[in-house]
Amino acid sequence: MPVTSSPPFQRLALIGTGLIGSSIARAARAQGLAAEIVATARSAATRARVAELGIADHVVETAAEAVRDADLVIACVPVGACGEIAREIGPHLAPGAIVSDAGSVKGAVIRDMAPHLPRHVHFIPAHPVAGTENSGPDAGFAELFVNRWCILTPPDGVAPEAVERLAAFWRAMGADVEIMTAAHHDLVLAVTSHLPHLIAYTIVGTADELAEVTCSEVLKFSAGGFRDFTRIAASDPVMWRDVFLTNKEAVLEMLGTFQEDLSRLTRAIRRGDGIALFDHFTRTRAIRRGIVSMGQDSDSVDFGRVHPTLPKAAD
Amino acid sequence: MPVTSSPPFQRLALIGTGLIGSSIARAARAQGLAAEIVATARSAATRARVAELGIADHVVETAAEAVRDADLVIACVPVGACGEIAREIGPHLAPGAIVSDAGSVKGAVIRDMAPHLPRHVHFIPAHPVAGTENSGPDAGFAELFVNRWCILTPPDGVAPEAVERLAAFWRAMGADVEIMTAAHHDLVLAVTSHLPHLIAYTIVGTADELAEVTCSEVLKFSAGGFRDFTRIAASDPVMWRDVFLTNKEAVLEMLGTFQEDLSRLTRAIRRGDGIALFDHFTRTRAIRRGIVSMGQDSDSVDFGRVHPTLPKAAD
Repeated sequence: MPVTSSPPFQRLALIGTGLIGSSIARAARAQGLAAEIVATARSAATRARVAELGIADHVVETAAEAVRDADLVIACVPVGACGEIAREIGPHLAPGAIVSDAGSVKGAVIRDMAPHLPRHVHFIPAHPVAGTENSGPDAGFAELFVNRWCILTPPDGVAPEAVERLAAFWRAMGADVEIMTAAHHDLVLAVTSHLPHLIAYTIVGTADELAEVTCSEVLKFSAGGFRDFTRIAASDPVMWRDVFLTNKEAVLEMLGTFQEDLSRLTRAIRRGDGIALFDHFTRTRAIRRGIVSMGQDSDSVDFGRVHPTLPKAAD
Repeated sequence: MPVTSSPPFQRLALIGTGLIGSSIARAARAQGLAAEIVATARSAATRARVAELGIADHVVETAAEAVRDADLVIACVPVGACGEIAREIGPHLAPGAIVSDAGSVKGAVIRDMAPHLPRHVHFIPAHPVAGTENSGPDAGFAELFVNRWCILTPPDGVAPEAVERLAAFWRAMGADVEIMTAAHHDLVLAVTSHLPHLIAYTIVGTADELAEVTCSEVLKFSAGGFRDFTRIAASDPVMWRDVFLTNKEAVLEMLGTFQEDLSRLTRAIRRGDGIALFDHFTRTRAIRRGIVSMGQDSDSVDFGRVHPTLPKAAD
């Protein structure tokens, strides 16, 4: 690897400065990946906050202004807003610029953005599989992408050097990079991310509605398992609305499989089939071990939650 | 509160020394709650390990032997094994002893244990709503019950002083105590614990079965949400088999409500109803805040998972 003192990008434009955009700003600066970082956000309040946080060199009012002379542009907005952003920035993009995004759905992003982008840019959609339940510029942190995967889905015909430049950018922020088609991405993420979120959103809503059990009881006794679901059901509502609207087919397909499996387990419960339940529960235990051994979750018990100390014993 | 140097119980008998039993042993000793702790376990290997760990004063071979002269007996075994334990210990229980358990279902425990217990003991079923994904005597720790709820479900006619003695025991280990009927307990826990576990077990199984997405991809990209479910789907299979077999009605009822809600969200996705999705996702966000503000989950982002540091930047 060559040792160089000049940053790999001259001007990084971030359109959107929520959890992901503001984390990229912080990580890119910490790693010296851009000589200049320009950021914009739709709301004046967010732009003011980003300026206050000092995580970008310039905060500008419009996406069109942000992308001027940028050699790397990343749209960090809900998937449903990507088309509009592309239409706005299209005429202002510098020749040779890499244009990317950070959305959780890739087919819809390509469909919505590609028609508005000039031929003289390299359009390489990306999805960093990382996040927390928090949103907004204050929620970001430079380490968010470390040991997480960033999936690139370059359409056919994109210059391999441009793909490699973007991959190197993500690797420098600590991510591992994987390349696949947009269609395969959308199927994989439907299982590992979209379906889990939908299920979590459902069950948390169910608990909130019951007549026989009070809401306060649900909260009080949530350490029995329920609380684990509430974290992802606290994720950004706009982002997730857009995910389900734009990855509809894959999500509905996975939901179908999930429903069949749930019916099978329900039947086992109804029939008192202990062997089927035991076998299923034993198999799923192994999957947890796989995730931990792949470094995709903490090996600390209970996600590393801190247990408070014992009260002082009477003596 | 009186300051006393004699422990509240003379002899604590723990039948079963998995996560819960071994945590009680450690916490009771740390807090000086019993002059003597006697433990037993079904398997010789577990008994040997408990002796090696030194978390009990005596390790004995049978439950009958363990309860002799004990003034507090706690069965810490899967719910389905409670009846057999009661039958075994019934004739050996000391007059005035408190007999309790730690099972996640209370109706079935009362049904199975009560007939075998003599009239001269105080039978007070209990359920500490605490746990981790690990099992066995090595998994326990003294702080497990701190800030967690322990639910007591004393049948009608139990002496209030005995209930208070048991409540004080749990409070001394850091737990908050709540008293309710067994039937209400089983309904509340069906929502806050049993249904979440069933759903997690289902979705983890679903991901494992897909033809289009490899298992290695599921593990790799699990940080998108899936990994959160794998923790509780790694819980003890025997314990959970018994929960579903013994709390069948309440679980099936909650499953019915969950299914209705899932159908409603599925319909919203199919129809592209962004408003319904957004409204639902906004409501569930508030529930997370309620749990955190009640002290039932960490207020640290991402459950407090540790993010590794950034790689060293090139310079």
